[in-house]
Amino acid sequence: MNGAQSLIRTLVANGVDACFTNPGTSEMHFVAALDTVPEMRGVLALFEGVATGAADGYGRMAGRPACTLLHLGPGLGNGLANLHNARKAATPVVNIIGDHATYHKQYDAQLESDIETVARNVSSFIRWSVKPDEVARDAADTISAASGPPGQVATLILPADVSWSDATALPDTLPHAERGAARAVSDDTLRTVAAAVRSGEPTALLVGGRACRRAALEHARAIADATGAKLLCETFPARIERGAGLPAVDRIAYLAEFAAMQLEGLAHLVLVDARSPVSFFAYPGKASDLVPQGCTVHTLAGPLDDVDGALAALADEIGVDPRTVARADAARPEVPTGALDAGKLCTVIGALLPEGAIVSDEGNTSGLFAPGATAGAPPHDWLCLTGGAIGQGLPVALGAAVACPDRRVLALESDGSALYTMQSWWTMAREGLDVTTIVCNNGAYAVLNMELGRVGAEAAAGEKARAMFDLHRPDLDFVALAQGMGLPATRATTAEELHDQLARSLATEGPSVIEAMVPPIA
Amino acid sequence: MNGAQSLIRTLVANGVDACFTNPGTSEMHFVAALDTVPEMRGVLALFEGVATGAADGYGRMAGRPACTLLHLGPGLGNGLANLHNARKAATPVVNIIGDHATYHKQYDAQLESDIETVARNVSSFIRWSVKPDEVARDAADTISAASGPPGQVATLILPADVSWSDATALPDTLPHAERGAARAVSDDTLRTVAAAVRSGEPTALLVGGRACRRAALEHARAIADATGAKLLCETFPARIERGAGLPAVDRIAYLAEFAAMQLEGLAHLVLVDARSPVSFFAYPGKASDLVPQGCTVHTLAGPLDDVDGALAALADEIGVDPRTVARADAARPEVPTGALDAGKLCTVIGALLPEGAIVSDEGNTSGLFAPGATAGAPPHDWLCLTGGAIGQGLPVALGAAVACPDRRVLALESDGSALYTMQSWWTMAREGLDVTTIVCNNGAYAVLNMELGRVGAEAAAGEKARAMFDLHRPDLDFVALAQGMGLPATRATTAEELHDQLARSLATEGPSVIEAMVPPIA
Repeated sequence: MNGAQSLIRTLVANGVDACFTNPGTSEMHFVAALDTVPEMRGVLALFEGVATGAADGYGRMAGRPACTLLHLGPGLGNGLANLHNARKAATPVVNIIGDHATYHKQYDAQLESDIETVARNVSSFIRWSVKPDEVARDAADTISAASGPPGQVATLILPADVSWSDATALPDTLPHAERGAARAVSDDTLRTVAAAVRSGEPTALLVGGRACRRAALEHARAIADATGAKLLCETFPARIERGAGLPAVDRIAYLAEFAAMQLEGLAHLVLVDARSPVSFFAYPGKASDLVPQGCTVHTLAGPLDDVDGALAALADEIGVDPRTVARADAARPEVPTGALDAGKLCTVIGALLPEGAIVSDEGNTSGLFAPGATAGAPPHDWLCLTGGAIGQGLPVALGAAVACPDRRVLALESDGSALYTMQSWWTMAREGLDVTTIVCNNGAYAVLNMELGRVGAEAAAGEKARAMFDLHRPDLDFVALAQGMGLPATRATTAEELHDQLARSLATEGPSVIEAMVPPIA
Repeated sequence: MNGAQSLIRTLVANGVDACFTNPGTSEMHFVAALDTVPEMRGVLALFEGVATGAADGYGRMAGRPACTLLHLGPGLGNGLANLHNARKAATPVVNIIGDHATYHKQYDAQLESDIETVARNVSSFIRWSVKPDEVARDAADTISAASGPPGQVATLILPADVSWSDATALPDTLPHAERGAARAVSDDTLRTVAAAVRSGEPTALLVGGRACRRAALEHARAIADATGAKLLCETFPARIERGAGLPAVDRIAYLAEFAAMQLEGLAHLVLVDARSPVSFFAYPGKASDLVPQGCTVHTLAGPLDDVDGALAALADEIGVDPRTVARADAARPEVPTGALDAGKLCTVIGALLPEGAIVSDEGNTSGLFAPGATAGAPPHDWLCLTGGAIGQGLPVALGAAVACPDRRVLALESDGSALYTMQSWWTMAREGLDVTTIVCNNGAYAVLNMELGRVGAEAAAGEKARAMFDLHRPDLDFVALAQGMGLPATRATTAEELHDQLARSLATEGPSVIEAMVPPIA
């Protein structure tokens, strides 16, 4: 058994059985070893940003890591933006990077670069695996680190000669990866937070991360309702369970102006696996920290803590029963008609979203109304752009579909973002995944037209500046692009067309793409 | 004048007047400032890897840097692979990265990441510009560093508040960037190298970098011919001038087995702005260092040195006249017929390549015969994949076309590589650039099928492994993909079709794409 085989066997023995990859020469022995370990699924991506984003989507839905297999420093670079998003989502990812043979690095060959400095940007755990006999142990440690809590991108760097050399002293049983125990909430914390929510002063619970799943949301909603506190959710949760029968939660607005209104007047803000709210970008003359003056911020549970346990203990302390919590009613919006716009587009989604759907939301400005339109749709999961690095939506949809083959995935995409990692479509087709993509084509980086004014640069900007947000000249044809990648694709210019095309796509196995022509909302 | 305006004015005052960008909110004031400085050309890319590769192609052809404008750490990550290629090419690039406002970084907002650790991978010069009054000086220093020698990727990080704040104490004259003086060759080096080439022992001159331009090649060829030395060129030169009327030079083969034959028996190897030859990857049981045992390696000129001066001095010392050097005859191959294959494809290029063409070569296995087929074509430039990170060819072609609007650019692409940075096509169309792309569609990462055997992994590899190099299932349709990006595109399955389509594209203004269907050669 060589190092590569030892690695893959350790991965599958610890539940890591999906590998998203674009390999090169230095990874050939890992690739060859795929055939010796039938449990490992190898999923080819045509670009590393697809592979890393898919690992993120997989990890969010499976609750355990997939692995990547990337080709040296440049392959890692190509995958970095979506690893950044995965890091911000606290997704468990085993990030495997092939490297030159250990003895080859001294020659500074063409593909040589400093992998570790790049990896450090997304991984606090980095392991160079330099002995074939220790690859299994290194792999188990990497899986442990990735699994958390908190979930994270953990990187294993595998030199080619370690991959191809025989492992002479493989342990009888493959090493076991341990998931760390989450910390229980302390009595002190519990008392302080309980006092805050009972104080009668304006209070909000802010949930994020693992607190956006059904059980946590039920507890949080019950606590909020019993005490008169607001319940808010972070702006871009990695995964939130929502829809009819689940508690409704307001997300903090992307625009700091609106977020400030949501938070105005609070005396207490209780964080539950959420970060204290800050504006996405800095704006001249506006505060970056969105916590109102005089508001005390409490942390009920952080990244290392037992979130469900903390919320259950708080509910207990307050004396509320989450089973009786208010839940969103089942409700479908009326199907709209006429020329398509962003609002109607979201309404059509609300009218059709199937039970158990997974929505990968990178609709950006065009998708603004989608959460509202789907609030009463059957229960579903919603996955957001956690790190702000565009090009996440399609790969995350791909990975979610690999993790959940029995569920329909809807990728709600914007034109500018889709163009970053469009190669995802080819892998969806190859793997026969049930992913419906709606690309909102408004011919612009519409968010930047809005941001231009918000940062106070509008007055100086003229034709040259505005051309930098313009995706016309030439017009992009997403039907042709999707067909070029091997997918069936259609174009919708009216609400009726979108409704028919979406209904058909949702009822058809395998992936398809709908280009929805909408004017910019901003 | 704000920091952004001061920056752009300093750039154009120092000859940096093309900016390849995909900006975001933190770069809005830079974008707005484009309208206040008419000399600066802003070129929008739909992905940062396009922007950085275009800056590389521009720098190779213009001999002076373009700038990039990237959106924070994730934007840099997306552009990293082509900055790696630019670094290996010693291309001057002013790499500008927008960052959050200085006071916003403490909040670790969604897009916050450690830009500097990532930039360090490709830039030995990194400047944080933190005071609006000093942006001009910082920009000039960055241009100086980029310009070299050696040319390099120099990074300027521009926080949003430095960009938008007024510069109160701008100097009367904008600061001047200095290009460093190249070092003259020492008498000792000259005597040692002259003794080696005159020794009568087997000797080779190995040219690379700046020694691949016409004047240097003429001197090197003359020295080699007069002394019986071999003249070799590095495997992947950043830019080599070649064709009829120029001295012919053999490139060192990519395959180490063939390279070893070219270098066998040498007693002296003289490096002229080239690195000592090593194999691209490590292979079990094979040497990485390709210099034969007992061969002495001499450096006539390195990255900091005056390459032309060194070669002229050596020619003088030997007593040869480069004006009388042997040059390649003008010769066109006969136009082939019948079903297309990689050999015929290259022959058609040889038959039609126009004078002054710039070839961006990422044809990989399918382009193997292209240098041979074009050896007697009219004078042209050939740009190679310097760092081995695929996805270079189309962006480099784009940047070269911006730098040289009067010349035809031919992007010789492979299917796998084209898929990395295909968004380049849209920018070619938008800018109306005279770029002809030939995509060699062989439905495979063919080089990996070959490498699988070379690294000794073939025996273990089965169906799952081979699927990782297979680009069928579904088939990619590059005509549809190019049309989706707004370009005219055609498909060639015979040599006659390719000949007609290529002739038509070369005679037509603006970009177009030809999908050439070829079987894999390996």
